Amino acid sequence: MAEAVRNTAEGLDAGLVEAALDAARAGDAARVEALLEPVHPADVADLLEQVSETDRDALLAMGSAVIDGEVLSEISDAIREEVLDALPDDVVADALRELDSDDLVDIVEDLEAEDQGRLLGAMDAADRVAVEQALAWPEHSAGRLMQRELVVAPEHWTVGEAIDFLRKAEHLPDQFYHVILVDPRMSPVGYVTLGRVLSAARGVKLKAITEDSFRTVAATDEEADVAYIFNQYHLISCPVVDGSGRLVGVITIDDAMTVLDEEHEEDMLRMAGVGGESSIQDGVIETIKGRIPWLFINLITANVSALVIGQFAGTIGQIVVLAALMPIIASMGGIAGTQSLTIAVRALATRDLTVSNAMRVVRREAAVGAINGLSFAAIMGLAGWLVLGVPMLGVVLAMAMMINLCVAALAGILVPLAMDRLGFDPALASGTFVMTVTDVVGFFVFLGLATVMLL
Amino acid sequence: MAEAVRNTAEGLDAGLVEAALDAARAGDAARVEALLEPVHPADVADLLEQVSETDRDALLAMGSAVIDGEVLSEISDAIREEVLDALPDDVVADALRELDSDDLVDIVEDLEAEDQGRLLGAMDAADRVAVEQALAWPEHSAGRLMQRELVVAPEHWTVGEAIDFLRKAEHLPDQFYHVILVDPRMSPVGYVTLGRVLSAARGVKLKAITEDSFRTVAATDEEADVAYIFNQYHLISCPVVDGSGRLVGVITIDDAMTVLDEEHEEDMLRMAGVGGESSIQDGVIETIKGRIPWLFINLITANVSALVIGQFAGTIGQIVVLAALMPIIASMGGIAGTQSLTIAVRALATRDLTVSNAMRVVRREAAVGAINGLSFAAIMGLAGWLVLGVPMLGVVLAMAMMINLCVAALAGILVPLAMDRLGFDPALASGTFVMTVTDVVGFFVFLGLATVMLL
Repeated sequence: MAEAVRNTAEGLDAGLVEAALDAARAGDAARVEALLEPVHPADVADLLEQVSETDRDALLAMGSAVIDGEVLSEISDAIREEVLDALPDDVVADALRELDSDDLVDIVEDLEAEDQGRLLGAMDAADRVAVEQALAWPEHSAGRLMQRELVVAPEHWTVGEAIDFLRKAEHLPDQFYHVILVDPRMSPVGYVTLGRVLSAARGVKLKAITEDSFRTVAATDEEADVAYIFNQYHLISCPVVDGSGRLVGVITIDDAMTVLDEEHEEDMLRMAGVGGESSIQDGVIETIKGRIPWLFINLITANVSALVIGQFAGTIGQIVVLAALMPIIASMGGIAGTQSLTIAVRALATRDLTVSNAMRVVRREAAVGAINGLSFAAIMGLAGWLVLGVPMLGVVLAMAMMINLCVAALAGILVPLAMDRLGFDPALASGTFVMTVTDVVGFFVFLGLATVMLL
Repeated sequence: MAEAVRNTAEGLDAGLVEAALDAARAGDAARVEALLEPVHPADVADLLEQVSETDRDALLAMGSAVIDGEVLSEISDAIREEVLDALPDDVVADALRELDSDDLVDIVEDLEAEDQGRLLGAMDAADRVAVEQALAWPEHSAGRLMQRELVVAPEHWTVGEAIDFLRKAEHLPDQFYHVILVDPRMSPVGYVTLGRVLSAARGVKLKAITEDSFRTVAATDEEADVAYIFNQYHLISCPVVDGSGRLVGVITIDDAMTVLDEEHEEDMLRMAGVGGESSIQDGVIETIKGRIPWLFINLITANVSALVIGQFAGTIGQIVVLAALMPIIASMGGIAGTQSLTIAVRALATRDLTVSNAMRVVRREAAVGAINGLSFAAIMGLAGWLVLGVPMLGVVLAMAMMINLCVAALAGILVPLAMDRLGFDPALASGTFVMTVTDVVGFFVFLGLATVMLL
């Protein structure tokens, strides 16, 4: 399988990984450090995630030769507690000192209380205050996502004043793309891109060269909504304000990109009936915990289907071939339902399915269901007649296929719309509901028609 | 349904939409323009996508009151040809003039040859050349994605020289975040963030303040790989080089974010058996075209299951309750297989499933399958015994459940790994293969065991 699966991460070749592991196993911290020095922290984090637990422990025993702030920030939530527990306090403290407040919050917020306390204790006082203030905002809010390091200027400043200020500033954020203009009450009133600051003459007023795209988000806004705004309006950074309109932080596009990525992942996993936070790094127990609930729900809905089939035991006893044919009708409905469901869940997530077009989309799905239903009804009808030699069985197959594909198309759009209306995540349970509908309707219609028309 | 579905886009309230549509229907272009002027182009594009075809035509008849370059660039591929066909040449030409080369390429590349010719004809000569050069790169490559507007400086320049150059420059790109340093052969050798340029003293050499994160991509690289690099290494912009290492363009993070978004969508849609480019705006015919292939493949695989069941007609004829119970075993396998498949497809897409951990993940899936199998085997075994009153039926149910859940967990990981190894997109067909395996195995094991143990 060696070449099959993509080669680990870009910056990690198999030779380097082996050499680093050998050095770590031999306890040669200097060599490990030399080997990993040119590797990007994101790739070091991937390395730690992908090796076995024993090898991970050997690497972590190398302390700061392997772990710095960036690596700690990049590492998957699934193994972060394990990594932190394996590291001595001074290595953790050194690593934390390198990070901006938004990265610190990201590391601390998902930890258990005990680990949180340990990390807060290891931080500088200023960082600790910043993190504690951020944690006061709700989970998954803009307040948790933002960085507090800001570059602001009074709204009356000129380009020259801004440049002089920046040259004199002692500590600037690692990343900033705008100078935010604030009024005397610290409310943001506009921003100027650094490109504009650089290309304008020194005497130009900042206010004269602000960007049209300027908008702010509230610290209590959901991070998913913030990600949507970045994607929709192509923002690079966005100031965050508190309840009284004061500037409290800024969110940059790389954080928004991470949120967008996580939201997608959650939708995809939820649709498949796996916990939205599941990951390839989870252990066996966590994996089972994430999967058992939906298997259990499916067991119940599958038993409903079995009950429906049981009602027609007499019919099946007389015409056994029905038992072989009925899963075809159910499974075609399942596929058609999943198809229309997926389009709907995705369109709800990207806000392309709205009040203005919901009815048109429902009508389109109905039309698609009817036409696909007719096509496959024709195929199955002919097959039933010609292959099985019973014309009436062909008619039953065709009618059941037609009805189930129409029901599937409509359930695929109406169930997620209804979930969304009721305030649930349409990705969460729509799949199970839609499959239950197509199974139950499929079995009932097919066996029911067979009972009426063939007996 | 009015409040259920999320309110169109942020910038569009229902009142504004109605007012704009009324004005458009009345042919009042001035009023439409006044109403839409404060609306973000991305929201105007959403409006055009979400209204009915008749309303869209009324809006498009307003010409430049509705359409500018940004709107044209934001509009969904699904309706772009229709929009372009409805617009007079001068409106299109004015709109195109506002856009950077990467946006022009994005608009032109998916059009049919005739429309492409019309748009290229409407462009300024310089834009046309830029677009034609971009189209010479392969589809979905970095060369298609990049913008050609660049901010470069010789590697020996100082901060002051760079600032003076930028102040004098006549035309700067709409977005730029770095000054790219090039050697005399135009090979990029590093870049400096604008924040650093602004905060450093005029005499500082640019070479002394370049970023560690610097890396380049080749114009022929896949855009999906470029998006991965941006996400993995938190890049903001990335220079693009041709085969001889010369700088030919730059990709910015907003374009990478769009690609990431599209890749996710493709994976999600492909897993559901819908064409990867399907959209909520597609017409009935396109929708059917996207869905028929997988329905057809499913029809074939469902018939394989039916053949398997058919082999046991004799058994079912004697014990009809088996027909009601067999879909439970198959459907539980389907869910378990989809769960493990989704985690695997996602991990392959994010490159978290690699050579280093593939065997460990396979072992974990086997363990999860065995434990879930045992749990649900116990439940079904007891149910078979207590509810149905036939102890041996309980044993058959339990054994079939156990085997099918193990097979499901393994198929869910091994099928996508194999697809990836063979160079296919694991999202594409894995679902169908895994479901076929769990259906066939489920029916075969359950009915086979029943034949051996109950007859």
